Amino acid sequence: MTQTVPAQARRVPRIRLGMVGGGQGAFIGAVHRIAARIDDQYELVAGCFSSTPEKSAASAAELGVGRAYGDFAQMAMREARRKDGIEAVAIVTPNHLHAPVARAFLKRGIHVICDKPLTATLPEARKLAGAAADSDALFVLTHNYTGYPMVRQARAMTLAGELGEIRLVQVEYAQDWLAEPIEQAGNKQAGWRTDPAQSGAGGAIGDIGTHAFNLAGFVTGLELEALAADLQSFVPGRAVDDNGHVLLRYRGGARGMLWCSQVASGCENALRLRVYGSRAGIEWAQEEPNALWVTPLGRPRYRLSRGGAGTGLEAARLTRIPAGHPEGYLEGFANIYAEAARAILARRDGAVPDPAATFPGIREGLEGVAFVDACLRSSKRNGAWVALAL
Amino acid sequence: MTQTVPAQARRVPRIRLGMVGGGQGAFIGAVHRIAARIDDQYELVAGCFSSTPEKSAASAAELGVGRAYGDFAQMAMREARRKDGIEAVAIVTPNHLHAPVARAFLKRGIHVICDKPLTATLPEARKLAGAAADSDALFVLTHNYTGYPMVRQARAMTLAGELGEIRLVQVEYAQDWLAEPIEQAGNKQAGWRTDPAQSGAGGAIGDIGTHAFNLAGFVTGLELEALAADLQSFVPGRAVDDNGHVLLRYRGGARGMLWCSQVASGCENALRLRVYGSRAGIEWAQEEPNALWVTPLGRPRYRLSRGGAGTGLEAARLTRIPAGHPEGYLEGFANIYAEAARAILARRDGAVPDPAATFPGIREGLEGVAFVDACLRSSKRNGAWVALAL
Amino acid sequence: MTQTVPAQARRVPRIRLGMVGGGQGAFIGAVHRIAARIDDQYELVAGCFSSTPEKSAASAAELGVGRAYGDFAQMAMREARRKDGIEAVAIVTPNHLHAPVARAFLKRGIHVICDKPLTATLPEARKLAGAAADSDALFVLTHNYTGYPMVRQARAMTLAGELGEIRLVQVEYAQDWLAEPIEQAGNKQAGWRTDPAQSGAGGAIGDIGTHAFNLAGFVTGLELEALAADLQSFVPGRAVDDNGHVLLRYRGGARGMLWCSQVASGCENALRLRVYGSRAGIEWAQEEPNALWVTPLGRPRYRLSRGGAGTGLEAARLTRIPAGHPEGYLEGFANIYAEAARAILARRDGAVPDPAATFPGIREGLEGVAFVDACLRSSKRNGAWVALAL
Amino acid sequence: MTQTVPAQARRVPRIRLGMVGGGQGAFIGAVHRIAARIDDQYELVAGCFSSTPEKSAASAAELGVGRAYGDFAQMAMREARRKDGIEAVAIVTPNHLHAPVARAFLKRGIHVICDKPLTATLPEARKLAGAAADSDALFVLTHNYTGYPMVRQARAMTLAGELGEIRLVQVEYAQDWLAEPIEQAGNKQAGWRTDPAQSGAGGAIGDIGTHAFNLAGFVTGLELEALAADLQSFVPGRAVDDNGHVLLRYRGGARGMLWCSQVASGCENALRLRVYGSRAGIEWAQEEPNALWVTPLGRPRYRLSRGGAGTGLEAARLTRIPAGHPEGYLEGFANIYAEAARAILARRDGAVPDPAATFPGIREGLEGVAFVDACLRSSKRNGAWVALAL
Ligand SMILES: NC(=O)c1ccc[n+]([C@@H]2O[C@H](COP(=O)([O-])OP(=O)(O)OC[C@H]3O[C@@H](n4cnc5c(N)ncnc54)[C@H](O)[C@@H]3O)[C@@H](O)[C@H]2O)c1
Ligand SMILES: NC(=O)c1ccc[n+]([C@@H]2O[C@H](COP(=O)([O-])OP(=O)(O)OC[C@H]3O[C@@H](n4cnc5c(N)ncnc54)[C@H](O)[C@@H]3O)[C@@H](O)[C@H]2O)c1
Ligand SMILES: NC(=O)c1ccc[n+]([C@@H]2O[C@H](COP(=O)([O-])OP(=O)(O)OC[C@H]3O[C@@H](n4cnc5c(N)ncnc54)[C@H](O)[C@@H]3O)[C@@H](O)[C@H]2O)c1
Ligand SMILES: NC(=O)c1ccc[n+]([C@@H]2O[C@H](COP(=O)([O-])OP(=O)(O)OC[C@H]3O[C@@H](n4cnc5c(N)ncnc54)[C@H](O)[C@@H]3O)[C@@H](O)[C@H]2O)c1
Repeated sequence: MTQTVPAQARRVPRIRLGMVGGGQGAFIGAVHRIAARIDDQYELVAGCFSSTPEKSAASAAELGVGRAYGDFAQMAMREARRKDGIEAVAIVTPNHLHAPVARAFLKRGIHVICDKPLTATLPEARKLAGAAADSDALFVLTHNYTGYPMVRQARAMTLAGELGEIRLVQVEYAQDWLAEPIEQAGNKQAGWRTDPAQSGAGGAIGDIGTHAFNLAGFVTGLELEALAADLQSFVPGRAVDDNGHVLLRYRGGARGMLWCSQVASGCENALRLRVYGSRAGIEWAQEEPNALWVTPLGRPRYRLSRGGAGTGLEAARLTRIPAGHPEGYLEGFANIYAEAARAILARRDGAVPDPAATFPGIREGLEGVAFVDACLRSSKRNGAWVALAL
Repeated sequence: MTQTVPAQARRVPRIRLGMVGGGQGAFIGAVHRIAARIDDQYELVAGCFSSTPEKSAASAAELGVGRAYGDFAQMAMREARRKDGIEAVAIVTPNHLHAPVARAFLKRGIHVICDKPLTATLPEARKLAGAAADSDALFVLTHNYTGYPMVRQARAMTLAGELGEIRLVQVEYAQDWLAEPIEQAGNKQAGWRTDPAQSGAGGAIGDIGTHAFNLAGFVTGLELEALAADLQSFVPGRAVDDNGHVLLRYRGGARGMLWCSQVASGCENALRLRVYGSRAGIEWAQEEPNALWVTPLGRPRYRLSRGGAGTGLEAARLTRIPAGHPEGYLEGFANIYAEAARAILARRDGAVPDPAATFPGIREGLEGVAFVDACLRSSKRNGAWVALAL
Repeated sequence: MTQTVPAQARRVPRIRLGMVGGGQGAFIGAVHRIAARIDDQYELVAGCFSSTPEKSAASAAELGVGRAYGDFAQMAMREARRKDGIEAVAIVTPNHLHAPVARAFLKRGIHVICDKPLTATLPEARKLAGAAADSDALFVLTHNYTGYPMVRQARAMTLAGELGEIRLVQVEYAQDWLAEPIEQAGNKQAGWRTDPAQSGAGGAIGDIGTHAFNLAGFVTGLELEALAADLQSFVPGRAVDDNGHVLLRYRGGARGMLWCSQVASGCENALRLRVYGSRAGIEWAQEEPNALWVTPLGRPRYRLSRGGAGTGLEAARLTRIPAGHPEGYLEGFANIYAEAARAILARRDGAVPDPAATFPGIREGLEGVAFVDACLRSSKRNGAWVALAL
Repeated sequence: MTQTVPAQARRVPRIRLGMVGGGQGAFIGAVHRIAARIDDQYELVAGCFSSTPEKSAASAAELGVGRAYGDFAQMAMREARRKDGIEAVAIVTPNHLHAPVARAFLKRGIHVICDKPLTATLPEARKLAGAAADSDALFVLTHNYTGYPMVRQARAMTLAGELGEIRLVQVEYAQDWLAEPIEQAGNKQAGWRTDPAQSGAGGAIGDIGTHAFNLAGFVTGLELEALAADLQSFVPGRAVDDNGHVLLRYRGGARGMLWCSQVASGCENALRLRVYGSRAGIEWAQEEPNALWVTPLGRPRYRLSRGGAGTGLEAARLTRIPAGHPEGYLEGFANIYAEAARAILARRDGAVPDPAATFPGIREGLEGVAFVDACLRSSKRNGAWVALAL
């Protein structure tokens, strides 16, 4: 017998999602789609997946997405007019397009879920920040590593003072996929990332340095006072940096180092954060994301496990399966979507959003681009200390 | 402009999926749902989520599933009659219900995706195997650990002879969640698992020993000749084993040990397989599933990384994101669903299924229940060697 | 100015040590010599290093040892007569010589530091146990793994009840150096180890199985009730087992598994012990000996570090350098010598020995040989449960 | 029968060793003594163990050392006059004494084995370098981490070009033992290390930064072009730095970062080196010294094991025991003594020294002090790039 279900317990309708970028052969668009699906709160109904209508349509067909657009501006306009138009858009194009695309949707009140870095240039970032401020729509930046439960756990412990006064931040993000000049051999993702016109003037520092910088700030809550950067471009003919060494000074006295590299042979996606305070440290590595090491002064180091004993609410609310059943990158990414969904649904209902829902937004995006800008300025001035030009 | 999409490139309609079990508060049903969603090839449209109509309906409402049933037999009957009825059903009830539920759907030609162990008793398993043989429908058993890409890699290497002649199998599956008598305190999952009427006569040996046994067989391709088991029940008042030690003799001369435990304090979900051949060994641990260690004789041990260098097609085809971006339990589970989808869609089209599509089925299910049966018989006879009664 | 030193604070004269075995090209003799030197409490003054006088003399010359003998019986006799004769002898010959050599020295009141296994046969072991009982001299068996500080820590915690009631013992010792028939290619160490006349009827089970068995007993304090063994000889033409699988039943209800192998491709010296009790577990691996993992039920697992926070007196007294400065195999071995020195010096002075000084002795040696004997008996009876014939 | 040994095969007499520093309660002196003993090539016969004659004599008595001195100058003079005087002296005093003590022995032709940093100040270092150049005696600096076999392996591979062109050096040395102001609570080792008069103007940067810097140079063979340093003193009231962040520029284009800390809560002795070249990287951590990770571009990462397959002669010649039998800090330290012994014995015989014998010397010492000096200068100038003032 098919049951009649009482109205109040019914599932709320899925958030109608659009996507710009993420066409055939693209990397992160597919990740966003999985992330949006995992918790079943979004439905992808429209997209401008590529820069040409044909390709966009082909992608849409493959994905079973009903409404394909050949131009993001059109998409924003038309979707805004439909009764069943998208409520949110995921922006997964190369960097230089984030700003124009985002503005097109923001000004129509469509929530934006944009990948990082916020924009290719600092002026653009500032302008976009203004647009976001002027819009009723939400702005979500997929600094996805902040979605890992054990990163949330680290943040909770750090902010609660369990580490004592924070002294040291060591953050690094090492890859090797650009160790050779594959942009000259036609690799698509490498192509635009090493083209300042599309990527911004920063190379590795923008592509992954921003993740590292954001992660450190997210976990510690510290604000940067100044940095000194030494950027390098090791691969002959490369137009942007592919490695960066940065010294960090945070307000309040904490000091740090940030290393990012796309030429560290043998490193895959080695984002790692270590924070040491006067009473304890924490250590987390993205490649083993289910563990958070706590290293207290004068007590044995211990391993907090996602879903396991000793782990708090901040991690638990983003945890789907028990300890020992590893969650990974896609689930971490999905957590950003889940947090965003809480905020979006609250807006839909005119409700007060869940105060626990946390995700990076326009502010973090602006800081990230200002971080890249500062690194470039410092490096040009031979590693002089500079502040973020927020 | 909304594009018209050429028909041939269109996405095939999602597989209409039903579910039996997996109601509110259930464990693995939610996992199946995520697994089915990750690659967007299924749509959950009907369910009998609980043993009472009210609860089933409440779950359906929460999940946004249109057709809720209060009885699986009704569900099978009605869905079979609908033009838009389900094509496959996921069975995620306690063990003793697998057989009756599966038979109800099989006999109506609805594909079955059933969780392990196949059944609670060996006679039931045999009967179900008969029913599966008699049905046109597919039978998929979610021994999900076989879905991990690096398990596929291990299997490919082993079957290709890269380990030489296999000598040794060391497999273990250690948990601690039943280290105390939580079944007496009302824990739902512990409750039925320690009740022979619902779980079968095996406790840990059935619940997780079957996974370990299946994994070893999957990776090595070896067939068991005999086993000798020493099962224990450590927690006072427990009606089933909560720990098992098993010696293994495989046809062809390989020997092994299997340990499963639900009382190993501090162990979360520590499924681990090690296989050693005359030329090399492999080591894999479920809690770090993205790595496969290869340990050649006379050469340094190396780490194959999911998505990384040196990893073959068998792993690559089940890999969504690049090396260093960890995939986890849910993706491994989703791989079983993806493999099943390949087979189901081929059936839908009357096409020849992709020969690479690999998933555990009725045979593995029968072997698993026969394994439990053999362990119980051996243990009762003080660890005598017994063969599987297939 | 050269100082006159007050008599009472003077260093006691070093223990005069002799050695039987350990000539040129031998393995463990050199280890014993380093172990004896590390804490500077022994002086090697005499030796019968090989079975021929010439080789023995050549070894002595190379080592700078004054008194070289060509025959251990002569050595025992002559040294016993000298005023400055040796006080202790290290026996590092192949197994079948342990008994005659040890008896020769014991009966003259010279302390014996003998390597494992105690003897090649059980009757010999019993006879030697009698000789040890009849002698005033000490008998020290170099089950060197018991000398690791973190093994002492594990033992202290286990005996103090920190693990609760012990339920499970998982111990394994995997090597690969006999994965091929190197005894047929002239390898000296492989040669006698695979010759039952020199090694005893056990192969891997005697050579390393005894270590594993001893370690488990040392840490848990448990006594074996019965075992069931399945021994294999994988390498064609090999006269002894090279792999063993053993089920263990301890008095009081604990159960266990022991695996030893010398054909596990890619394993170096992988002795590993895991013990799980009702409240916590411990995990220790010889290849990373400075760490002891404690895995409490319901709390995060933590890493005790040799010399580090949370480590007790039992480990501290055998620790030379601070945490983070790894000690290794030689220091663990030296700890057996250091413990023996405490006992030997107490005997020299007629003093009461330090009650903390702990080392394996004749009892453990007898148990080890009885363990091998039981494994062989069980394996011959197809894995029947047998008790140690102590 | 006691053998007569042919003269030519006789062991050479041990090197007569003296020690300055290393009295009761001292740290590293005891390590030097064990290191000197492990391979049995030294005999400690004289010492000025403390600054007062009484304490020196008490230490000598405890150690069983015959000749105790109350003053290092006297010791140098008297020992030089004896026919059986020391051939080499180990200097293990606080830093500020290294120079005067070393000069006293060097000028009498006694070989010096001096701990690091070479001196407390750069002028002293230069003066000592002059004295060493003027002396016939050898100068050995115990940058002991260069003695680890797998560090030798790393160096051999790097120098042989197996990494390709070196791009990146990441080196760090983190401890936590000075995370609190224990110098104010009477800790001896902390006391002098935080007193610029005894330690030099550098704190952590001198104490452990020099090790890190030396290790990077040893393994890569690179020469520093310039550095930029940000030193901190986190613990209130501390007179020297306790943490340092340094950017490195090597000649030829390699770039690096160096982090040293004595306030990184939960870190024990975490010296770690990573070097990435255009073809491969290597990773080594002192706390697991028996492993060297090689991370080739485009191939799986592998683990070289001390004594194991794939490890070359440079490691093998400093290896005592087989793979899987861990050697540690003391053996690494002993390797420096063993290398020094090769050079000293060659001098004794007027022979050409073994060209393979490698140990840090006066040049490395001078570089280390110049490194500290440069860090201090740079840090005072707000992280300006400075060169070493060699
Ligand atoms: N969060 C992360 O960890 C992460 C990881 C990878 C990429 N990213 C970011 O995601 C973005 C995309 O990176 P990627 O690696 O997926 O790049 P990609 O080159 O693989 O994909 C870019 C997509 O944008 C499409 N596109 C280009 N111009 C367009 C236009 N005018 N209209 C519509 N679509 C257009 C392309 O056709 C392509 O499908 C970048 O900003 C990048 O920094 C973030
Ligand atoms: N593959 C794996 O690794 C894995 C992991 C966990 C569980 N499992 C298996 O999945 C199955 C379920 O385990 P679980 O832990 O999720 O159990 P659970 O107790 O959490 O869930 C069982 C569900 O079945 C429902 N149910 C019971 N009787 C029913 C009926 N007559 N009709 C419809 N629904 C009914 C219950 O209401 C509940 O929702 C078991 O067979 C178990 O062995 C497999
Ligand atoms: N504790 C451990 O971990 C460990 C490790 C290795 C070996 N062992 C034990 O040490 C013993 C020796 O093993 P090994 O690997 O060093 O063997 P080996 O073959 O390397 O050395 C044996 C030595 O004994 C000498 N020898 C033989 N007959 C002799 C005689 N009649 N008189 C004097 N010397 C004689 C040989 O000349 C040789 O020098 C064995 O009992 C073995 O089980 C223990
Ligand atoms: N290689 C390494 O890794 C390492 C490790 C620790 C220390 N060190 C170095 O070793 C040296 C000693 O450090 P430590 O930690 O052992 O210090 P410590 O304070 O423990 O020992 C110093 C010793 O020098 C003695 N001493 C002081 N003045 C003396 C004098 N005038 N004559 C004779 N002896 C005198 C003291 O009595 C004491 O015994 C330092 O230079 C330090 O940097 C090196």
